[in-house]
Amino acid sequence: MDDSQTLGPTDADFLADFAAMSAFGATGNGGVDRQAATAADAEQRAWMAELLERFGARVQYDEIGNQFGLIELRPGAPYVMVGSHMDSQPTAGKYDGAYGVLAAAHTAARLAAQWRSDGTTPTYNLAVVNWFNEEGSRFKPSMMGSGVFTGKLDLAATLEMTDVDGVTVYDALELIGQRGNAPRPDVAAYAEIHVEQGKGLEKDGLTIGVVEATWGANKYELTVHGEQGHTGATLMPDRCDALLGASMLVVAAREIAEAFEHGPLQTSVGQMLIYPNSPVVIASEVTVLLDLRSPDADVLAGADVMLHARIAEVERKANVEVRQATSHRWGVQPYTEAGVALAEQVADDLGLKRGRTMTLAGHDSTNMKDVVPTVFLFVPSVDGVSHNEGELTHDEDMIDGLRMLTETVRRLCDGALG
Amino acid sequence: MDDSQTLGPTDADFLADFAAMSAFGATGNGGVDRQAATAADAEQRAWMAELLERFGARVQYDEIGNQFGLIELRPGAPYVMVGSHMDSQPTAGKYDGAYGVLAAAHTAARLAAQWRSDGTTPTYNLAVVNWFNEEGSRFKPSMMGSGVFTGKLDLAATLEMTDVDGVTVYDALELIGQRGNAPRPDVAAYAEIHVEQGKGLEKDGLTIGVVEATWGANKYELTVHGEQGHTGATLMPDRCDALLGASMLVVAAREIAEAFEHGPLQTSVGQMLIYPNSPVVIASEVTVLLDLRSPDADVLAGADVMLHARIAEVERKANVEVRQATSHRWGVQPYTEAGVALAEQVADDLGLKRGRTMTLAGHDSTNMKDVVPTVFLFVPSVDGVSHNEGELTHDEDMIDGLRMLTETVRRLCDGALG
Repeated sequence: MDDSQTLGPTDADFLADFAAMSAFGATGNGGVDRQAATAADAEQRAWMAELLERFGARVQYDEIGNQFGLIELRPGAPYVMVGSHMDSQPTAGKYDGAYGVLAAAHTAARLAAQWRSDGTTPTYNLAVVNWFNEEGSRFKPSMMGSGVFTGKLDLAATLEMTDVDGVTVYDALELIGQRGNAPRPDVAAYAEIHVEQGKGLEKDGLTIGVVEATWGANKYELTVHGEQGHTGATLMPDRCDALLGASMLVVAAREIAEAFEHGPLQTSVGQMLIYPNSPVVIASEVTVLLDLRSPDADVLAGADVMLHARIAEVERKANVEVRQATSHRWGVQPYTEAGVALAEQVADDLGLKRGRTMTLAGHDSTNMKDVVPTVFLFVPSVDGVSHNEGELTHDEDMIDGLRMLTETVRRLCDGALG
Repeated sequence: MDDSQTLGPTDADFLADFAAMSAFGATGNGGVDRQAATAADAEQRAWMAELLERFGARVQYDEIGNQFGLIELRPGAPYVMVGSHMDSQPTAGKYDGAYGVLAAAHTAARLAAQWRSDGTTPTYNLAVVNWFNEEGSRFKPSMMGSGVFTGKLDLAATLEMTDVDGVTVYDALELIGQRGNAPRPDVAAYAEIHVEQGKGLEKDGLTIGVVEATWGANKYELTVHGEQGHTGATLMPDRCDALLGASMLVVAAREIAEAFEHGPLQTSVGQMLIYPNSPVVIASEVTVLLDLRSPDADVLAGADVMLHARIAEVERKANVEVRQATSHRWGVQPYTEAGVALAEQVADDLGLKRGRTMTLAGHDSTNMKDVVPTVFLFVPSVDGVSHNEGELTHDEDMIDGLRMLTETVRRLCDGALG
């Protein structure tokens, strides 16, 4: 830890705040359940609002529930924005997203204290952000708040999305009092720090990962249409079994990944919604969310062709119809090289071991990098465990990440990326 | 239709009552949703209680919520019991079970009127029954009321079974006021009429199916245990994907049926419960209800061996553990030959075209036949459509079935099966 830090909150304050925030939605196994706009999410947001105000920020919300903490030292100047998300998957780890928002808040507090002490005014103002619904577990799609903020998602349509109980995003946000009408701040640059959710840094003995590109991803919502019937009485050749068709798609996704020999392709189905899902009834409708991810655009294109061939085969073999409701894609995309070089310089100046890496998962920074110069940083995840109550990042790594983020944001506020 | 019927309710009364009862839990597409101990089930039960009282029966309930209408003409004598179930699957047809209970009630009304008119007293008393939770969609296992009544299920353990929201059978029955303490009536014989849920009678141009045996069934509750992780960030070789394992089991079940060449084996998975079932999370636990059904005990035994070999393969390939929580089996079992012969004689006497058949699905009569002489009858299902809002049995077939049931029960009350 860095005991030379004397202005603003200390490393010990950071760890105490992290322990306090981890209590919201705690699961009892060291994890958390703070799905978007649930009571746990709302309570944690209220806590964060108090913390940001204590740190001298002005807290406001936009129409999709993004929570901002603004420190305006140069009236009217654009903002460097820094943050992540505080919502979680069900039974998730406590570091994912939450670490990045708290690190952003402490970064802002440290820099504000420094600027006050020095009597300097940075080129840009500073905004902390807690993006709404990054996880997408309660409301699809994921990265919702940053998607609307960057204009990739339509606000009105997104507010009408529903959870499994039919509650809209609009109503959920109204219920927890987190829908505001703050104007979009003018953003000059964005920075985010996140746990790696992989084993790369740990394996290579590094403290900081500088993300230079995203893997590409194709996400498909496929609905398998069959015919409801009695599982006992409907003869096999008469069946149109939507659950069989959906299961064949899950197996096909894995086989497509294996066809690429574990190399640069990841495939998965995390969610399957089955109707009527009763013990003795053949399912009439099953919806599957299937992802293909790769760092190589050609691999992704090849996998997409294989998937569509397998879909046609499933339709024939299971006697079902498969309709593609939506698909959502992002390509293999670089983060700005100037941002990568800046982060490398900061790490070297601070004596932190760093390496370049890619992100397999989507993040809010994936959206932001398309509209403003963006720096995206990783700290190590023990054993790469992620979306699991057993997720762990060591305290020393969190503190080193906080130092890294603080210095990076200081330089961004001084105009390092223009 | 039989216009010679002059005593008790008429055929037109029957059809009017059937239309009235089909309104409970009506889905708008011609089907019904009356899962066990829901509001719709409770309202329909109250309606049936009134009907039975109007028909001169004394209505009572036992501790598992079975609803009885007793017509006691010979005090202390055993009962011939006749009935079926009125609960349904979600989005089910309106004939399944409900037809049999209403036919039983009208049978009782017609026979009681006849006996009063003739001044005769039959050998046995007559009881109509509406068995609780035959479908097993809300609470497992299926055939719950008749299972407890026949001693195949333990009352106390069954009352503690819960639905997906954690509500117990006990609390659900208390909530709708349908838990009683009536003693088990002494039963001499049982009769049930049901829609076929298959195409056999229609294909052969028959009006009445006389069920001579059940197919055997093995039902397995299999839980696949994996490890929760991020679908984007967890590399393929590191995954323990419970949804992949479960999907492989669904596909395996179909392949096992195909290995027996569509002949005497039916396999299915109707229900899959997935945790956490979130778009970007690898599932950690998936429970699958898998059935094997055959009219041939050797085929069933062979399929069971194949299934266990496939389970071991799934564990290896998907890197998961599959635990068998429960299994529930019934063998290929005959209905009493004397009952089959009696039904054939009745059909011939009434001029109804009849044939012998087997039941692929389980029914309350499957339980009852093991404790008392039982006659089980089918009427045709158009296109064999079942557990589907489009289920249909023509009015003429319902009326012919009612005549068939009435005459069969009359002879049972006169001691035709001893």
